[in-house]
Amino acid sequence: MKILVTGSNGTLGIPLLRELRKRGHTAYGCDMAHSEDPQYIRCDVRQFRQLENIFQVVKPDLVYHLAAEFGRNNGEAYYEQLWSTNQVGTENLIRLCLAIKARIVLAGSSEAYGDSGLASLREDVLDDKVHMFHNNYALSKWVQERQVMISAKRDGLKAVILRFFNAYGEGEYYSTYRSVVCLFCYRLLHDLPITIYRNGHREFLYIDDWTRTVANVAEKFDTLPRGSNFGGVPVYNIGGEEYKSIEDMAQLVIEEIGRTVPIDKSKINYVDEEIANVANKRPDLTLAQRDLDHKCKVPLTEGIQRTVRWMQSVYGKQAFAKEA
Amino acid sequence: MKILVTGSNGTLGIPLLRELRKRGHTAYGCDMAHSEDPQYIRCDVRQFRQLENIFQVVKPDLVYHLAAEFGRNNGEAYYEQLWSTNQVGTENLIRLCLAIKARIVLAGSSEAYGDSGLASLREDVLDDKVHMFHNNYALSKWVQERQVMISAKRDGLKAVILRFFNAYGEGEYYSTYRSVVCLFCYRLLHDLPITIYRNGHREFLYIDDWTRTVANVAEKFDTLPRGSNFGGVPVYNIGGEEYKSIEDMAQLVIEEIGRTVPIDKSKINYVDEEIANVANKRPDLTLAQRDLDHKCKVPLTEGIQRTVRWMQSVYGKQAFAKEA
Repeated sequence: MKILVTGSNGTLGIPLLRELRKRGHTAYGCDMAHSEDPQYIRCDVRQFRQLENIFQVVKPDLVYHLAAEFGRNNGEAYYEQLWSTNQVGTENLIRLCLAIKARIVLAGSSEAYGDSGLASLREDVLDDKVHMFHNNYALSKWVQERQVMISAKRDGLKAVILRFFNAYGEGEYYSTYRSVVCLFCYRLLHDLPITIYRNGHREFLYIDDWTRTVANVAEKFDTLPRGSNFGGVPVYNIGGEEYKSIEDMAQLVIEEIGRTVPIDKSKINYVDEEIANVANKRPDLTLAQRDLDHKCKVPLTEGIQRTVRWMQSVYGKQAFAKEA
Repeated sequence: MKILVTGSNGTLGIPLLRELRKRGHTAYGCDMAHSEDPQYIRCDVRQFRQLENIFQVVKPDLVYHLAAEFGRNNGEAYYEQLWSTNQVGTENLIRLCLAIKARIVLAGSSEAYGDSGLASLREDVLDDKVHMFHNNYALSKWVQERQVMISAKRDGLKAVILRFFNAYGEGEYYSTYRSVVCLFCYRLLHDLPITIYRNGHREFLYIDDWTRTVANVAEKFDTLPRGSNFGGVPVYNIGGEEYKSIEDMAQLVIEEIGRTVPIDKSKINYVDEEIANVANKRPDLTLAQRDLDHKCKVPLTEGIQRTVRWMQSVYGKQAFAKEA
């Protein structure tokens, strides 16, 4: 199958592209920067002409649309990119997919659920309910889904929506905008302070498990049953099975790093409640297990061990540098 | 009161700015083009720096944020402008209003209700339900509201949301993207074909009535009760009382124009159902009547007469030119 992965230089794009090629697909990547990869074409998805050029070269049967502005705080700090990349970029892709009848897999987010207060999040709870959003990023990810649903209903776009929960693991390079596992590992390794919100619970999915399930979508795309939303788009939660408090997860990171490196406990701050974030997010994984052969094979203890080791190998030289 | 009206060169902006000045406010306008008005500063609301400059000059107590990409078909044809102007532009304004504690009045749309199937639209039906959207414009207007609500809840933004239904009347210059009354009047005057969707019903609010109520918001802003949505933002439907089929409205236009000009009936096409539009939209006006002194004084027959006369005065020379 000819596949295009947008955002292919990202934490998720890199292993997905690798896996698709391993499975024998002709998989092209595109992202903002140049690359040495011969099956890669530089492209800003906000620029229709650049994307159109790729479609003319690759003529994909299927597109994984991962290119997006990512993260709550990033979305507030860079809302210009958020709305243009996530909304205009997605609309550009929708139009181009329609023109050649290519399938599209949208990288959605658990943030689309907003602050539902529900104990477990089943895909269809968003069909006609909308929950409180705390930030523009959540709103923007919810909107991407609706753009796809509108086009599926109106134009016959062939689409699948995946709602990613907390994927983590090797390959996620640190910035202050990254996921909580990445933040904790990097900052503790570098003797930087961390803040643990006691009221939060999450599940965590190791990148290898994420990659396998997401790559499965390409092969199963045409057999997936219609979704219950107004566009009939199949929607799947992609998340982990181990549901833990942020505090318990942090404890695993602390123990893992503590094996080889002394940790200054005074750098660890506990706060009862985080404002403007969703306290608890637990996916119902029934549909992904049923239709996508979704399996969580890497337990959190092992995943954190692998993440910490990867970080030590990548950041070895800079480790333990104090923050300016 | 020092007031800034964004989109002040638009069909709604022009009479609103005039009315606010008549009431003694210091009212500045801004829009995309240059203007001879000394209390006007050119600005693209997508450009933070340009907007920031206006805020430094005007220091508004209140902003009417009318600048937006408007219309269903326009939103599909120009989605790049839609998402950047409506979302980035609104976020720019939110940030600037927060910085100087200015109030903001958001020009929302009845399109935010989506395709609800409800006989009458009360403001609070959108608090946690979301209806089917047929197009990006509807989605974008719904999102603007949520952006305002998020900031009201999180940052204390002082905001009011107005959901405009079909305002019509003199001052609306024709393009194919304009409102249905404008379309029918212009096209029949120019011997161009029109299409009437038999399944549609709307109410219509004459521009004078729209202007009075919307100008009232500035004076009543600080006394309005909290809204029931998660941001506590007061939300008001601004619409007309005469609920009619599109066909009956068209009949009034045909009769009015027919008084002075022969109409070629073969140019009038009747279609049973419009795809990708909401069939019936009827606002509940209770809140606007209670809190904003909303009154509908100009009946539809008179409003259409005035609109047709205005159009004849404006387009007199070009009238009856055949479409190329």
